[in-house]
Amino acid sequence: MRAVPFRFENNTFWLLDQRRLPFEEVWVPCQTARDIAAGIREMVVRGAPAIGVTAAYGMVLAHLSGEDLAEADALLRQSRPTAVNLFYALDRMKPHWGSLEASLREAQAIWDEVQETELAISRHGAKVLRGQVLTHCNTGPLATGGYGTALGAIVEAHRQGRVTHVWVDETRPYLQGARLTAYELQKAGVPATLITDNMAAYLMGQGQVDAVILGTDRMALNGDFANKIGTYGLAILARYHGIPFYPALPLSSVDPRLENGNSIPIEQRSAREVTVIRGQPIAPEGFPAAHPGFDVTPHHLITGIVTEKGVLYPPFDEALRAALGVE
Amino acid sequence: MRAVPFRFENNTFWLLDQRRLPFEEVWVPCQTARDIAAGIREMVVRGAPAIGVTAAYGMVLAHLSGEDLAEADALLRQSRPTAVNLFYALDRMKPHWGSLEASLREAQAIWDEVQETELAISRHGAKVLRGQVLTHCNTGPLATGGYGTALGAIVEAHRQGRVTHVWVDETRPYLQGARLTAYELQKAGVPATLITDNMAAYLMGQGQVDAVILGTDRMALNGDFANKIGTYGLAILARYHGIPFYPALPLSSVDPRLENGNSIPIEQRSAREVTVIRGQPIAPEGFPAAHPGFDVTPHHLITGIVTEKGVLYPPFDEALRAALGVE
Repeated sequence: MRAVPFRFENNTFWLLDQRRLPFEEVWVPCQTARDIAAGIREMVVRGAPAIGVTAAYGMVLAHLSGEDLAEADALLRQSRPTAVNLFYALDRMKPHWGSLEASLREAQAIWDEVQETELAISRHGAKVLRGQVLTHCNTGPLATGGYGTALGAIVEAHRQGRVTHVWVDETRPYLQGARLTAYELQKAGVPATLITDNMAAYLMGQGQVDAVILGTDRMALNGDFANKIGTYGLAILARYHGIPFYPALPLSSVDPRLENGNSIPIEQRSAREVTVIRGQPIAPEGFPAAHPGFDVTPHHLITGIVTEKGVLYPPFDEALRAALGVE
Repeated sequence: MRAVPFRFENNTFWLLDQRRLPFEEVWVPCQTARDIAAGIREMVVRGAPAIGVTAAYGMVLAHLSGEDLAEADALLRQSRPTAVNLFYALDRMKPHWGSLEASLREAQAIWDEVQETELAISRHGAKVLRGQVLTHCNTGPLATGGYGTALGAIVEAHRQGRVTHVWVDETRPYLQGARLTAYELQKAGVPATLITDNMAAYLMGQGQVDAVILGTDRMALNGDFANKIGTYGLAILARYHGIPFYPALPLSSVDPRLENGNSIPIEQRSAREVTVIRGQPIAPEGFPAAHPGFDVTPHHLITGIVTEKGVLYPPFDEALRAALGVE
């Protein structure tokens, strides 16, 4: 069974509260764009594609509840100012403000396209996976509303009998792997084992990892990519052990303005997210902590890039430009 | 100021309860060998050298309290059956069972020798460190009763003005870095920042790590060594970035029966230590987790081995045999 982050029923958009997963499954009903904006802001729903779909339905709810559409749009745009998918979805909704029916159709189309793209990513990715795979962070249906990217490929490869077991990096400091990827693999019936992030090298050295596949926040035209902190280290460890290493992403995550990854800014997040786990401090009071949220992996450590148009191989700059149709 | 794991005052051996650090400093009074055995068994005190010293004082308390000495010795040996230092210390105490004075002198000698050895390790290690160093797990006074091994070298290098800042791996799953190394560096007044284990590669890539130094549980004659899980991965990342990598250890941690690290057994510990942090679950109920407690780093990833007889350089098999005086 596939985890779903939301559903639309009887004019209500229900959000699964991801802050409480995997410990409780609590559904939050939204009947206005204001409810949706609060859900996005408070991280009830997370993951770039999932936020885009949610915002689109926020505009549908604005029609249904009689909210001022311009105010609803502004409120949704402020709910997570760094999420590119949010603006993309709201821009697509704007021409349909005149009609509830057209608005509903467009929101559904945005959701459908996420699912089609990820089905293609999952099928292409599944072809390069076999045996035991290792993944990092959360790239499943909860983050997207579709099939997932890297996790979609893993689940599809397991369905085909190609992948037998998954190593799940817990993904400190936020523990997206332990909380969400573990939950999703359990739902999908894929055999999986949780590890701390520092166990990957040991398992690779033991011959227990046949491939690494994970997500991508943002990719440059040469294949350099930003993703959750820990990704760069995994790429180096995979290369050292001769293990294939695949980022998976929709081509919409490639930024055609970036020639390489040098200029991708790394968000420095709160120290408290490192020093406190589920409300419990783990270090001396006031001890400093660093929290780069992401790192950048250079393209030369990548085996192949899994996209909805197939798996791209080096030279990545040529392959990515061809896939995107840019010069 | 140096953290201390125990003190002997007015016929009482006081143990600092390391399970409650860094949140509370609670001293547990021990007046019998039985109290000491309980303290070792329940992890009030931990770290191989510290356990050896503690057990020696356990025999002193047995004399003072009038316990049966053979029973006290047996009880202490059962308190942590895998700790080599425990048996070494109790073997040294045995010839002195006839006399409280001789027994007290021998316990003090064992403690003094730990301190002398670690002072030498710290001074030799300090010479190879500069700028920003990264360390893993806990190798400070709390683990030894002396100056510490890798952490001793770091503190000494800071005192000499050579080391300016320390990156402290939190060291999942047990968080010895976040809890104990952070606490010790704070006490010692050394500027330090906590990181999650998966941030090391990012910092190395940013040029913010000038050396890695860490401890050693057991080393083979060729320099291969077992240490806390995560060590092997750090060695690979350091090599990739051209950063010097040093294990530090007393020569008593070299096992002359081991030609290489292939036969060092890796203890597989409880999954619960991964899935529960400070009483809080972090993964779905019953989700499987792996927990290799240690990994083995091959000698070819080592820059130099820091010992009480100096820093040894390749070929390590020759250097270690010479230092140990074995063929």
